[in-house]
Order: sequence, then structure tokens, then C-alpha cells
Amino acid sequence: MATLGDIGVSAVINIVTAFAFLLAFALLRIQPINDRVYFPKWYLTGARGSPRHSANLVANFVNLNFNTYLTFLNWMPQTLRMKEPQIIDHAGLDSAAFLRIYILGLKIFGPTAIVAFLVLIPVNASGGMLFFLSRDLVISDIDKLSISNVQPKSPKFFAHIFMMYLFTFWACYMLYKEYDVVASMRLNFLALKSRRAEQFTVLVRNVPHVPGHSVSDTVKCFFEKNHSTHYLCHQTVYNANKYARAVRKRQKLQNKLDYNQLKLERHPNTRPTRKTGLLGLWGEKLDSIEYYQQKIKELDEKLTMEHQKILKDPKRIMSAAFVSFNSRWGAAVCAQTQQSKNPILWLTDWAPEPRDVYWKNLAIPFISLSIRKLVISLAVFALVFFYIIPITFVQSLANLEGLERVVPFLRPVLEWSFIKSFLQGFLPGLALKVFLWLLPGILMTMSKIEGHVAFSVLERSTAAKYYFFMLVNVFLGSIVAGTAIQQLHSFLHQSPTQIPRTIGVSIPMKATFFITYIMVDGWAGMAGEILRLKPLIMFHLKNTLMVKTERDRLKAMNPKSIDFPEAIPSLQLYFLMGAVYAVVTPILLPFILIFFAFAYFVYRHQVINVYNQRYESAAAFWPHVHHRIIASLLISQLLLLGLLSTKKAANSTPLLVVLPILTVTFHKFCKSRFEPAFRKYPLEEAVEKDTQDEVSEAVNDMKSYLCEAYLHPVLRSIEEFELFELGVDNNRAHIPSQVATELEPVSGSGSGSHSPKEEHKVAPKRQDLEVVVEQHDKT
Amino acid sequence: MATLGDIGVSAVINIVTAFAFLLAFALLRIQPINDRVYFPKWYLTGARGSPRHSANLVANFVNLNFNTYLTFLNWMPQTLRMKEPQIIDHAGLDSAAFLRIYILGLKIFGPTAIVAFLVLIPVNASGGMLFFLSRDLVISDIDKLSISNVQPKSPKFFAHIFMMYLFTFWACYMLYKEYDVVASMRLNFLALKSRRAEQFTVLVRNVPHVPGHSVSDTVKCFFEKNHSTHYLCHQTVYNANKYARAVRKRQKLQNKLDYNQLKLERHPNTRPTRKTGLLGLWGEKLDSIEYYQQKIKELDEKLTMEHQKILKDPKRIMSAAFVSFNSRWGAAVCAQTQQSKNPILWLTDWAPEPRDVYWKNLAIPFISLSIRKLVISLAVFALVFFYIIPITFVQSLANLEGLERVVPFLRPVLEWSFIKSFLQGFLPGLALKVFLWLLPGILMTMSKIEGHVAFSVLERSTAAKYYFFMLVNVFLGSIVAGTAIQQLHSFLHQSPTQIPRTIGVSIPMKATFFITYIMVDGWAGMAGEILRLKPLIMFHLKNTLMVKTERDRLKAMNPKSIDFPEAIPSLQLYFLMGAVYAVVTPILLPFILIFFAFAYFVYRHQVINVYNQRYESAAAFWPHVHHRIIASLLISQLLLLGLLSTKKAANSTPLLVVLPILTVTFHKFCKSRFEPAFRKYPLEEAVEKDTQDEVSEAVNDMKSYLCEAYLHPVLRSIEEFELFELGVDNNRAHIPSQVATELEPVSGSGSGSHSPKEEHKVAPKRQDLEVVVEQHDKT
Repeated sequence: MATLGDIGVSAVINIVTAFAFLLAFALLRIQPINDRVYFPKWYLTGARGSPRHSANLVANFVNLNFNTYLTFLNWMPQTLRMKEPQIIDHAGLDSAAFLRIYILGLKIFGPTAIVAFLVLIPVNASGGMLFFLSRDLVISDIDKLSISNVQPKSPKFFAHIFMMYLFTFWACYMLYKEYDVVASMRLNFLALKSRRAEQFTVLVRNVPHVPGHSVSDTVKCFFEKNHSTHYLCHQTVYNANKYARAVRKRQKLQNKLDYNQLKLERHPNTRPTRKTGLLGLWGEKLDSIEYYQQKIKELDEKLTMEHQKILKDPKRIMSAAFVSFNSRWGAAVCAQTQQSKNPILWLTDWAPEPRDVYWKNLAIPFISLSIRKLVISLAVFALVFFYIIPITFVQSLANLEGLERVVPFLRPVLEWSFIKSFLQGFLPGLALKVFLWLLPGILMTMSKIEGHVAFSVLERSTAAKYYFFMLVNVFLGSIVAGTAIQQLHSFLHQSPTQIPRTIGVSIPMKATFFITYIMVDGWAGMAGEILRLKPLIMFHLKNTLMVKTERDRLKAMNPKSIDFPEAIPSLQLYFLMGAVYAVVTPILLPFILIFFAFAYFVYRHQVINVYNQRYESAAAFWPHVHHRIIASLLISQLLLLGLLSTKKAANSTPLLVVLPILTVTFHKFCKSRFEPAFRKYPLEEAVEKDTQDEVSEAVNDMKSYLCEAYLHPVLRSIEEFELFELGVDNNRAHIPSQVATELEPVSGSGSGSHSPKEEHKVAPKRQDLEVVVEQHDKT
Repeated sequence: MATLGDIGVSAVINIVTAFAFLLAFALLRIQPINDRVYFPKWYLTGARGSPRHSANLVANFVNLNFNTYLTFLNWMPQTLRMKEPQIIDHAGLDSAAFLRIYILGLKIFGPTAIVAFLVLIPVNASGGMLFFLSRDLVISDIDKLSISNVQPKSPKFFAHIFMMYLFTFWACYMLYKEYDVVASMRLNFLALKSRRAEQFTVLVRNVPHVPGHSVSDTVKCFFEKNHSTHYLCHQTVYNANKYARAVRKRQKLQNKLDYNQLKLERHPNTRPTRKTGLLGLWGEKLDSIEYYQQKIKELDEKLTMEHQKILKDPKRIMSAAFVSFNSRWGAAVCAQTQQSKNPILWLTDWAPEPRDVYWKNLAIPFISLSIRKLVISLAVFALVFFYIIPITFVQSLANLEGLERVVPFLRPVLEWSFIKSFLQGFLPGLALKVFLWLLPGILMTMSKIEGHVAFSVLERSTAAKYYFFMLVNVFLGSIVAGTAIQQLHSFLHQSPTQIPRTIGVSIPMKATFFITYIMVDGWAGMAGEILRLKPLIMFHLKNTLMVKTERDRLKAMNPKSIDFPEAIPSLQLYFLMGAVYAVVTPILLPFILIFFAFAYFVYRHQVINVYNQRYESAAAFWPHVHHRIIASLLISQLLLLGLLSTKKAANSTPLLVVLPILTVTFHKFCKSRFEPAFRKYPLEEAVEKDTQDEVSEAVNDMKSYLCEAYLHPVLRSIEEFELFELGVDNNRAHIPSQVATELEPVSGSGSGSHSPKEEHKVAPKRQDLEVVVEQHDKT
């Protein structure tokens, strides 16, 4: 077991690594050539054009202003300059709420750490149990400050129980306050949003098939009858997957055409040519520009035909529709009520934002959904508990002997002792590493199979699965020190009171492991996150090798969104560690606090400068965050109960049994108090917004605009789809710009589409978009 | 352990008891004097007047037509004569759905019994394991036909697994069909109901306090704003408990007055007198009629003042209101949506029927509700697992020595050996018996504290608690043979896989016990139910001692409702026994089948002739029935799993693990498929009914009638309240009669207030009521 010295060494190594990363980041970020890697958000919002207009050629690529090198850590205060409301404007509420989780961590564990140091460390240190043993057993110095150092049956345990109470109450108080704040932030955010399609629209699924009527007629009939005064129009959902493929093909051709035209501009004398054969390597020589123009024309004809086919062929129409209403009240009512006598038909729910819709899953019938859910939950269970089986199998194949048999000509190389030892150390872990790297993707695929209809829900569902995996395999796996299957086996064959004891007793011993984990995964990992090494390399690779047009460069920039499915579960693991060790080994808390603070800076920087959110769910993930922190509290209480019962402090049991009951009650209360704000839309709110709209100005073309809003993006225009795919239109209000600007005075400040620098990006209609693209082309 | 012979003896005893009860019932029911005990429903519907108009005085009391004695069992075919739609007309959907549970039992276990006898009995009997043991151990003959007789590791267990699959699929199929039928019966029933206040009304709770505004103003403001086109009017809820007490006092005085007036009529010469002193035993003599008239006049003045006070004093107005809408659509929308930004304010839900409202709980604020729920669930847990502690304590006090010490003068009597042995056998059980007798009342009180606002919900909640108690203390208690505390202790200290094994292994041995239980509690108990011994005695006692006026006789008749909180859980225990023993000891099934068939006859008779339902929830209890039968299936599957694992048929485990998963999936599917029909009101349905109303006739005084419908009954008129308390107004539509008759053609057949014999009872306004009462007086 690690001594304090070992921990110190590990800390030094990790701090040095982190600082190395930070230094590298500080140097790289001020190089103009890397500007698009470290500040893509500003390019997308249009605030930053290409900075490479200096007369000095070198200055276009390398920062020659040496003063900036001296202040290499100044990004940290810079990130704090932007206040929260501005961040909401700039990056959306999702990002702002995500940052709040780190602050919540600081708020919960900061005061806890102080009190725990003042109260528990003296109590533990004076316990003196381990001093007698220290010669014989290898006991870490950290253990002397933990609960292990208190002798069994000691009345000192009441100090720990008292701290647990204090910590639980404090955490619940902070959670309550935070939930309250986030809920009202969400309501405000929704209230200040300008008129948006999703506020008026409801997604209807499982539209029944009425013989002799089209889906569209059935929907119209039903809603004209049952929501007569509120129904406005609807948009059926088309199965346009085939068409989408063709559109992507056209995109590629267009790209090549652009490239050739660019070539021609630069060298007006030599028209670019191309051969007709395979990959353009042999055959007849042709004028490239004409060739591509011809190809595009052909494809366009096909596309038009396919387009017509989609709109007319009843088989291409799915049994789902986006139904729009003439008021928010009407939509709120429809989304929250049961429509049909048969409750599995005409299922209504709020429509996600148009860009958030996952189109493929819209047509899954109800029964299939139930079965998918069952199958996926079984699959997740199997994955979490039995993933080790296939990996062990692959590992047994992928050893050195196997490799030599497969690639005998490499044998001399493999026999070198250096390479051999490297491979022997590396290969066994490889399968596991590959699996862990693939895991988020696998979980996301599972969520897609489950049948959720919005990317935001898909990501939340993936996050839940990932958290479950981490809880079992990282947290419990590290403590109990066995594979998940062994855990499952022992859980099934131990009594319910024995399990917390088994885990509880080994918790204090694992404190050093988790401290190291926090430093490696948390500290160094975060520094790696801000360095963006992978995107940096990828961007420069793409930029030199593949980028032909400005459109490609936009693509290569690829700022990505915050990786919710991975970031939130990992973050919650820290809450779990904090909760469990707050009372047992409080020395762990400062490490977590440093992580929270550092990660807050890093993510704040990334949110402001890098990430470009794909959708805006208005902090819809918060209830999940809240639930899982509550779950962490419950786990920590149960483990302390188990730990104390092994310490023969049995008379403390009744005291500790009360805590989980109180926590569950608190959870239930919070659920009913705040969760509806994230799931429903109060009529009071809807009426207020409707009245505001009426007072300000009546928009007459509501109907035409709403009907178009939920058209499959591929069915719009080629350019729009392309930009949709690039994620450029993140601030699109999906309102014709004249409508949007009319509405602007109503919506007030705070809306995502409000800040002046983004103004021209609102509702990029085809013409506007081309302007944007051209503007980029010039750089 | 009992042999087949013992079971036979027990069966004979119970069959004889049951037949004795039936014979007694057959004799008693045809005596005119008992007519009001055995046919009160017909008196209440008005179809039957008093039959005592024969010239022969004896014939008024004793049936002298000896032919009727010969056909003493003819009530059985008679009960079948009334078809289900008529039963719904006559007694409501609750009663009809209740009867369907028994038919469901027959449908599930009938075919199961046949298949099990054909397949499992031969398999078990040929097992031959117990033949070797039978000399040494006392093994019942029944065990030779059970799964105990199959040798460990035998492949024959696959027959049992196959049967379990067959049984589960069959049960699920029947459950699905039945849920479907009941759900559509419910929708039909609601659709055919004539216009009723609860269809237009929503109960709003947690109305916030706005300074300077009354509750009434706040409600009006809020709904005029947020449901502008649908809001009609509202009725605030008054705290009228004090007033209700005064009204009851006035009732008693009125009763005495009536009695004295009757006396005067019979003996016109002697005016009845009364003394002023205590209990009318001494003091000045007064004319009784004048005295009571004077008293009533005084009380009436007080009542008027109190009445005014209630309506004016803002402290008497609770923060709840019944809000009525001008269409069913409006009410459906309001009931299903979230109103306020703060989700714990303005909580809306469907209003229960006016007669179903539990007025006292209307004003409980949200936070208090959460705390109450927590406290009560803890209390129920404690009651179920630790009730034995206080009872043991009481028992330790209530022994013979204790009794002799308390009442020394009885010592000679207590020393008689006969009385001594009787008491010694009787006293220890007394405390338990008293507790079990009080239990439903205790559970009902708990449910009331929990804060439900309708009697129907209170009864369902009580039923759930009672079922939990029975499951732990009767079913598991009998099998594991230990008190609930011991069970709890062993469950906490055994592994989750061990528990089904512990229980499973003792299941086959307890078959004989449950057979006896079914015969005693089911067969003889049902025969006791139809005899109505207690109501019979109570009615005659009251009739001779206390009944002064016809109103008293109505009260003494006391037909009661079906006792849902007790009847449904007991019934579900039979489903549980059937499910558990269907595969283990199929010989038990015929006993259950006889119970279901017999109970069906008995309850059908009672529903038609006796019970007078206090409320109509339109089979709202069905989801609970369904859930608990599913739970029984799950329990039976787990126990079989445990049993087979002790039989070392371990390779069967994977096969059996699949079953619970499938069952849970089926349950989830049913829940989403059918439960909304019991909890929500589809807008499609609402629109249909609204359109029907519009087409037929516009009712102009909707507003005035709706506003009055949810006035606290005590605030109406004295007579109305009195009849409300008597439960006479069960078919009241709460619509002024002219409105009701106008609506009659619209509502079609099938409504409770439709059948001609009840016509005159619709909406008994004060004049009408007096006619009814007078009519009774003449008899």
C-alpha cells in the first residue's frame, strides 16, 4: 500500500504532466495556425475571421509577438471574464448548466472538507489503533488519518455519524438550492427564447392506419376534431434515408467542383482535367469542371425524381407527424393529455428542436418500443457484468506467440528484448483499452436501438448506461477488487446486510488508489482535454492533405459539442468518491476540490472558445445529475453503515438507518417539486408568452413557417442540409428572417439569437448561407 | 401432517357448516320479517315497499306458504337470471367488475387444473421418492401427488417447468383479455353516463395565498386567465366540521319530535310529555312536542348564524376549490396538465363524485402530504412486521392469574374447571382476535391520515395495505412458520438466492394447511357472508329497541357496500395460493375453484339484493387487482425457482429465470396499454360527448347547477344531508330534476338513474324527499 511519500511522488508526476500540457496549450493556442483548433466557436459565431492576413508570411503561422508568451496562463482569468448570462447567450443553457455542476461540487465539498479536517482528522489521528500494528503490516500514513485508525466500539464513531448527518444535510441543502436555480434558469431561458417552432409543435407517434385515408388526412381529421380551435397544421414524417445518401453524394461532387474552380482561379491558364476511368487514373481525359457540372446535373435530376417520389409514395410516409398549433397553450395541452381511447395510439409529446430530431426512430410502433427497451436493458446488464468474458477471450488469442504465428516474418523483430517486453506489457491490456475506447459508441448504438427520437435524449440515455458501467466496474470493481461477474456472484450469495459490510470494510484501504486515480484521470486528464491534442493533429492533417475548399476547412475544424455521455458520468464518479470518503478518509477531499476547480476553468474555456453545441435541451439533463448525486449519498450512507457494523459500533445502526430514509424522502420531494419544470410546460407560462405575442404583433405567416420547420432537413435544399450536417446552424431559429427580426423586440435579451455578432446568422436562408460560405471562401 | 383422511374429515365438517348456513339463510330470507335484511337494495331502489300488508298478523312475520320452503336453494339460479348489463344498471360498474374477478379466477384456474391433473399428477405419482420414506416420516398422501414425490435431479422437473410456462402464458392471456374488457366497459360506462358534475369539474388543491385576495378571487383570476374559453365557475371548499356536528344534533331532535308526533297520532287523547331534567327523568313536566319544536327552533337559529359565518369567515375557506368548465374537453385538459410554474401549487386532478369526496382531507398542503406518506409507509411497515410485539405484551397480562388479581370476587367462578379451561384456551388468542378485527379500521385510519381525498381512493389504499399484511403474515407466515419479525431477520441475513429456497422447500408441506384454510375461510366464510348473521341480529335489535320513525328504520337496515378493503385482498390471496400451488401441488386447485364458483354466487346475490354502493368509481380498482395477480405470478415463479434449486435441478434455472422477465415485460406493456383508461380521460372521448350534448340540447343553467354540485353536503339543506348520510341518494345525478329529465334521452340506456323504477328518485329535492319519507311512514 502506498505511503504518504508514494502519494507525494505520484502527485508531483501528475502535476508536472498537467503543467506540461498547460504549457504546451499556452504555446500552441497563440499560434495563428492553430487558431481554428482552439477558437472554432468564434469562427462559427462569425466574430472571428481568419487572422492570417499579415504581410509577414511567417506571422501567418507562428506567433512572433513574444510578449504574449510571457503571460501564458492568462487564459484562466480570461475565462472568468464572461459572466453566466453571457455564457447562456454565447453557448446556450446546456453549457452553462454543465459548468454549474463543477461549482456545485465545490460548494458541496468545500465546506465539508474544512469541517472534516477540523473535526475528523484529530479524532482519527488520536485513535491510535494502527500505531501498534504499523511495524508488522504495511499501513499507509494516510490510513492513520482515516477511520481505520479508530478502535472498535469506540464512542468516537459518533463524531463520524455526526459528520455524515452534517454532510448529508449540507449536500441536500445545496442540491435543493441548485435545482431551484437551474429550474428557474430553464423557465427563464424558455421564456426569453424568441418564437420557436418547437414551442408550438407536438410530436405525434403511432398514428393509426385508417384504410382509404393517408396518414396526413388521418392526422388532420383527428386534430381538427379534437383540438378544433387550436390546431394549425402538421408535417408528416418521410422516410428519406435513401434520398439522404444521394444528397451526400452530390455534396462530394460539389466539393470537387469547387476545388477545381478554385484551381482554375489560381492558374487561369491551365484548365484542370480528369480521366474517366477508375479513380480518375486512366481513360479519356476530360475537362474536370465540365465533367463535375455534368455529373451534378444528372444527379440533380435523379434527386428531383426521388424527391417527388418521397412526397407522393404513401409507403414513404411514416406513421408519425409533427402537429403545430396556433398557440403555445394549445401545444402544451396536446403534449400533456391523452388523446385517444386506445392509449397506445396517438402518443403525443413535445417535439424536440428540429436539429435535435433523430429521424430514423420516429416510426417505431409502440409494441416494438417495449420489446426494444427490454432487450436493451438486458443487453446493458450483460455488458456491465459480463463484458470481461469476450475480452479475456480476445486477450488469450492476442499474445506474443499468437502474433508470431500470424506474422512469422516479423519474428526477428518481435524477438528483440525491448520490443518483446513492451508488447508483453502492452498487448494484454490492448483488448480492454480498445473496448473501453469503443464503449461510449456501443452504448450510444444501444440507446439508438432503444428508440429515442432526439439526440439529447439519446445522449442522456447513453450517459445513464455509462454511469452504471463506471459505478460497477470502476468504483465497486476497484473497491471489492474482483471482476463484475465475481461481484454479481457474491452479491447473489451474500445476505443484504453482508454486502455493505464487505464493501465498507475495504473502503478505507482503497483511499490511496482513488487519490492516484483522481490525479491521473482528473488532473492530467483535464489538462489533456484543454490541449485538444487529437483535434489539433487531425485538423492539421486534414488541412494539409484533404482540405480542398473552405467548406472542407469548416468540416475539418470540427469543434464538437461537450461530450455529455462521457463527461457527466465521469464527473459524477467524483461526487460518489467525495461522498463516500468525506467521512471515511477526509484527506481525499482536497484532491477532488482541486479537480473540480481545475475542470471548471478548463471547461469554461472550452465552452467559450471551442464547443459548438449540436442542440439545446435547456438543461434537460439536470434531473439526472441530481438523481445520481442523491444515489451517491445513499451509497455512501449504506457503506458507512456497513463499515461501522464491522467496527462493532452496532448501537449506531438505528442512527444511520434514519439517514437513507430522509434522503429518499428529500429525493421524492425534489422530484415532485422541480422535475415537472423539466418535463412539462405549465399552462400559466404558455398563456403569458401567448399574450405577449398578441400584444406585440400578430405574425400572419405562422402557418407556412411552422409547416416547413419540421421537414426532414434533407428535403429542404442541398445547401441547408449541408450546413445542417456541419452543425453551422446551431443558432438557427427556423424562422424566416423577417419574422425573426420582427419578434426580436419581444424576445428581449438573453436569447441565443440575440447578441449582435450573431445577428446575421439568424435563419440562414439559402441566399444568406451562400453569403456566409463565400465570406469564408475569401479567407 | 394431515393425511387424506384428515382432509376428508375437515372437508365434511366445513361442507356441513356451509350447508347449515345456507339452509338457515334459505329459511330466514323468505320470512317477511327479515325482508329488509336480505333485500335492502330493493327498498332503496324503491322497487319493494313493505310487504307486511297481509290481513293475517302472523303472515306479516312468518312465511306460511310452505311451498317456498321446498325450493330453498332456488336463490342460486335466481342470481344468474340478471345479466351483466342489468347488474351494471342496478348496482353500478364497481359491483359488476368485482364479480368479474371471481369469473377471472375460474377462467385462469379451471383449464389449469384440468391440464395439471392430466400431466402433473401422473408425473408426480410415479416419482416414488416418498414411498421409501413413508414408514419413517409422517408424510401425507397428498404429498405423494405433489412435487415432493419427484426424486432430485429427475428430468421429470421439465414437466413442471413446462406447466409453469403454460400456466403463466395462460394467466397472462386471460389477464390481458380481462383488462381489455374491463377497460372498455369502463369507457362505455362513462360514455353512457348522463351529464354529471364530476365530468365537468376538476379539484384544485394548494391554491396559493395571495395577500389581499380571497381564495375565491385567486381561483377565479387564475382560471379566467389560463383557461379563458373553458372556465365556467368554481366552488370553494369550506371547513364545516363544526356545523356538521350541530346538524347531526338537530337530526336527533327532529327524530324525537317525529316519534312523539307519531305517538300522538296513535293515541290522540294523551299528549306525550317529558321532564326537563337529566335524560328526561326528573324535573318539570313539559309537552314533548312543544319542547322539541322549541329546541329545534333554537338550534335552527344557531345553525343559520353558523352557516353565515362559514360562508363569510375567510379562515373557514380552505385552499382548495372545485373548478367547473363549460365542456368535458376543458375539464379533461385542466385535469391532465400542469398549471403553475411552481409545480406544487395549483395541483389539479379529476374531482371525485360529490358523494365520494372525503371533505376533511381537501386542505392538506403539498409538503405535509409528502411527510404524511413517509410516516404512514413507515407505520405500515412497522405494523406488518412488528404488530406481534404489543399483542404478546397484552397476552402476557391477560392470563388467568392476572384476571383473578383484577377481579378477585370472580375467583370461585374462574376456578371451575370448565370455565378455567375455556378461558385458558380462549384468552391468549383474544388479543390477537381483537387486533385482527380492528385491523381494517386501523388501516383505514392510516389511509385517511395519508391524505387521500375520496372514499374510493381511501378504500383502495386500505386494500393495498391489507394485502401486504395478509401476504406477509398469512401466506409467508404460514409457510415459513415464524413471526414476521423472525422472517424479516432471516431475510436480512440470508442471501437473495437463499430466500426463495427457504420458502420454496417448505411450500409442498404446507399444502394441506392451505386446503384447510380455503375450506374454513373460503367455503364456510362465504356461507356466513350470505347469512348476514350480524346485520340480521342488529336489525332486529334496533328495530325492536330503538327504531322510532321510518327514518330510523332506514338507518337500521344498513345494507352496507361491498367491503372492498377486505374482500379484494382476501380474494387475491386465493389467486396467490392458486398460482403457487398450480405446479407444486395441483390437488389444491379444485378447492380454490369451488371457492371461486361459490363466492361468485354469493356475491352476485348480495350485489343484486343487499349491497348499496356508497360511491361509483367505475372499476377504478381494476389496475390494482391486475397488478397484484401479476405479483402473485412473480412470487410463484421465484418460489418454484427456489424449490427446484433445492431439488438440484440446477440446469433448469436459466429456463425459469426467463419467466419473471417476461412477466414483468407483460406487466409493463399492460400498464401502458390499459392503465391510462383508468387514470386519464382521453380528449377524443370528451369531444364526442360534448358534441352529443350540443347536438341534442343546450342546457342553459349548467352554471348554476355545477356551482352547487360540490357544496359541502352539510351546507345544503338538513334533509338532503340526512339522506346523504343514509346513503339513500346513491343514484342522485346531482342535477336539478328538470335538467336531468331533459338530458335523459341523450344519456341513453345504461345510466344508473335511468331504469324506470328509480325514476322518481333522481335528484330528490326537498319536496320529493318528504314524499318519499311520508310514503315510508304510511307502511
